Amino acid sequence: MPYTYSQYLKYINKVADIKFASALLQWDQETYLPPKGNYFRAQQLATLDETAHSLFTNKKFGSLLNSLLSSSSLTTHQKKNIEISLYDYQKAKKLTPAFVRKMSEVINHSFHAWIKARKENDFSPFEKPLQEIINLKRIEADSLGYSSHPYDALINNYDKGVTTEKINNLFDTLQPKLKSLINEIAEHPQVDNSFLKRFYSKEKQWQLGIELLKRIHFDFDAGRQDISEHPFTTSFNTQDVRLTTRIDENDLENMVWSCLHEGGHGLYEQGLPSEEYGLPQGEYCSISIHESQSRLWENCVGRSLSFWQANYPLIQNYFPETFSNISSLDFFKAINKVQPSLIRTEADELTYHLHIMIRFELEKDLIMGTLKAKDIPARWNELYKKHLRINVPNDNLGCLQDVHWSHGSFGYFATYSLGSLYAAQFFNVIEKSSDNFNLADTHPVLTWLQSNIYAHGRSLTSEEICKKATGESLNINYFLEYAHKKFQMVYN
Amino acid sequence: MPYTYSQYLKYINKVADIKFASALLQWDQETYLPPKGNYFRAQQLATLDETAHSLFTNKKFGSLLNSLLSSSSLTTHQKKNIEISLYDYQKAKKLTPAFVRKMSEVINHSFHAWIKARKENDFSPFEKPLQEIINLKRIEADSLGYSSHPYDALINNYDKGVTTEKINNLFDTLQPKLKSLINEIAEHPQVDNSFLKRFYSKEKQWQLGIELLKRIHFDFDAGRQDISEHPFTTSFNTQDVRLTTRIDENDLENMVWSCLHEGGHGLYEQGLPSEEYGLPQGEYCSISIHESQSRLWENCVGRSLSFWQANYPLIQNYFPETFSNISSLDFFKAINKVQPSLIRTEADELTYHLHIMIRFELEKDLIMGTLKAKDIPARWNELYKKHLRINVPNDNLGCLQDVHWSHGSFGYFATYSLGSLYAAQFFNVIEKSSDNFNLADTHPVLTWLQSNIYAHGRSLTSEEICKKATGESLNINYFLEYAHKKFQMVYN
Repeated sequence: MPYTYSQYLKYINKVADIKFASALLQWDQETYLPPKGNYFRAQQLATLDETAHSLFTNKKFGSLLNSLLSSSSLTTHQKKNIEISLYDYQKAKKLTPAFVRKMSEVINHSFHAWIKARKENDFSPFEKPLQEIINLKRIEADSLGYSSHPYDALINNYDKGVTTEKINNLFDTLQPKLKSLINEIAEHPQVDNSFLKRFYSKEKQWQLGIELLKRIHFDFDAGRQDISEHPFTTSFNTQDVRLTTRIDENDLENMVWSCLHEGGHGLYEQGLPSEEYGLPQGEYCSISIHESQSRLWENCVGRSLSFWQANYPLIQNYFPETFSNISSLDFFKAINKVQPSLIRTEADELTYHLHIMIRFELEKDLIMGTLKAKDIPARWNELYKKHLRINVPNDNLGCLQDVHWSHGSFGYFATYSLGSLYAAQFFNVIEKSSDNFNLADTHPVLTWLQSNIYAHGRSLTSEEICKKATGESLNINYFLEYAHKKFQMVYN
Repeated sequence: MPYTYSQYLKYINKVADIKFASALLQWDQETYLPPKGNYFRAQQLATLDETAHSLFTNKKFGSLLNSLLSSSSLTTHQKKNIEISLYDYQKAKKLTPAFVRKMSEVINHSFHAWIKARKENDFSPFEKPLQEIINLKRIEADSLGYSSHPYDALINNYDKGVTTEKINNLFDTLQPKLKSLINEIAEHPQVDNSFLKRFYSKEKQWQLGIELLKRIHFDFDAGRQDISEHPFTTSFNTQDVRLTTRIDENDLENMVWSCLHEGGHGLYEQGLPSEEYGLPQGEYCSISIHESQSRLWENCVGRSLSFWQANYPLIQNYFPETFSNISSLDFFKAINKVQPSLIRTEADELTYHLHIMIRFELEKDLIMGTLKAKDIPARWNELYKKHLRINVPNDNLGCLQDVHWSHGSFGYFATYSLGSLYAAQFFNVIEKSSDNFNLADTHPVLTWLQSNIYAHGRSLTSEEICKKATGESLNINYFLEYAHKKFQMVYN
């Protein structure tokens, strides 16, 4: 009996079901899990991850894929799914179920060590678990294989085909231009954003966040938002996309732009082809493109003048005591203030890339083995001094600020920069697509993204999507133009 | 190589991990799932249920169990786990993974049909899915096997060894005594409970519920409470026990006694031996004993005078406008008002059993095939007229009120009555265990339950636990004595 496409569908749906169950357990872990529930949750997650991996790497599935690939009865669309699944299968085969289980357990342990370290504002409790993850990641890189740098293998997990060298080159070009723009801005009178740091109650901020998500057309019948220590987006299918945010009562910016950032991720997940559940063409293209969506909504839309000219009354209604006396133009300037700072997620659009470059430098060395976990704090502080010219007063404001390493996400950070650069390039096309472009209504933006980004699922690489959507490869000039135009308005 | 106990532990832990993951997906479905997320959630649940069943019924596991059972190296305690696991294995083998998947899918579909029927206050949309479940349940009964009545096989899922005949006999004895007590009460002046139906805000009720759970020593570091359409308790291990409640702003009783009821379930789950994760001796004894715990805290504790003499100030503080002028004695009488009513979960402790007897009658006939789903509404209303002498005005207040059938829980209802009877018998021993017994402090109650009920896990049957804890088999006279004593106080 020859294999059929519907056997493939049935099989890959099962794998997806188990993976998405694991994603729900993770979501619950960061939103509602009672403190003592951690221990067995880690074990439950490890079992699900191992089970999904075992199922996916079963030899019978490999035979099914190989046999279907040479079958003449498939449509081009079906064949594409099989091709990508086979690529995933061959890649997954390089890691054993036991390794996957071990990684899941170590990550869980490490995540809790990071939480502890954050509580104590001290890197030390995190050091050993982090080194353990790094060791596993080095093994993973070797197992997956690479041609020049072991770090390539890890970057490839987030953006297929992107290499250390490519990012090195990109950052080498971007860095001097960014620094000169930042220096130029520093010569102008600074804008005032102090009113964003007043008291804003948790309840009202929560409601405002929900309202803003509705205005960018996030579908609350197919998703929700909750509170977590660290904002993230996860999805269990296009009809169930979960965002989280955090609220600092003394900082309005934190919540608003985390909502818009995660909302951008959420719109992408809700917009993927829903009939392709569990299939490659129902998945996102790459993490770089995912971050292009979050950064586009957070910055290109969410820090634009026309979006806030339309939506400023919403903020004024929630917090009249502050905003009734402040113009939408002054608000726009405040939310675009450029100033070197300690925290990546709160950084302006220019210095943001310097935060990424620092992490990229550190990760390269950690994965090469030339830097050890114990030396991270000193090296971190040194790089912040060098690139951002600021002193890091403690670990929470320094090397403990990001959750990524505790999750084993090495190779991830660069995708934020790539995403921001892609976002500017996409946004340039969107802006030019209408004569009187205005972000009072964001529907045209969403529609463009739906047909040019979301609809492709994972059938194209980042570069291919970019070429198809904008007519050319990634080009940092779009970001630089976008930045020049914006900061000319902000700093005259 | 001979099999080892640690192989058994590793294997059965994996099965538990997948089962508890499924339980989390179900919990999420009833608490936080966005409306459109239902479709794929059903599929994800079916896959997890099928995967757990496949793993558990794997022949290799059967060989492992059989081999360990005849091994001489095990402790008595270890042997007990193996014995019960083998019983479960042999029982599970009677159902195929495909049947388990089918049941999971049909139940999910049926649950949503029930929700729809509830919204429309009309049984019809639920009729066909319910009949489909009943058909599957009849197949299940045949597969599992029974000696006299197919319903025995289903009751056995909730309380091992209990039969239709045994419950028939119990209800035949209980019914006339209950009815005569209810009639006797009806001749006395009725107590006033109208003040319980005033407006009580959602926020304050929520806080009050949490406070009450703390007072009965539910551990919020190892559990939580959320809102759902239908209150329930679920657990993913002793350190992560989840309760839900619902709040009706025009009825204080609904929330308070649902919290105490689910709290009783929760205390049991938190009190099970935590070192026995996934093992039979880490599981609850039976659903009857589980319900004895919920009913004990809900009624024997939660509707007692001494509990409320101590805790009444809490309610007075939350709602002074109502309760500052009402004495704790009048409050005690109000919450113990006996009156035939439509809704089981809101029924007093006496008429409650009549609600159960009606469901028991219906289920027997449904499983025998002598009653069809389409005939449920008429038969339901007829039985309510006969036993409670009330007219059922619509399906929501009648045959659509309980979620159980939509979950496929046939054979469950009788455990509520058995649980209430066990509760009274346990409580009798607890009361006698101290000279000045008083429920101002419920700690002694919890301690007694911990050593006499929780600690046994599933190593004893309901009857065995009862004998060990009280010195005799289930005896309905304890409940009747308890009821006489209480209602003498309420109705003089």
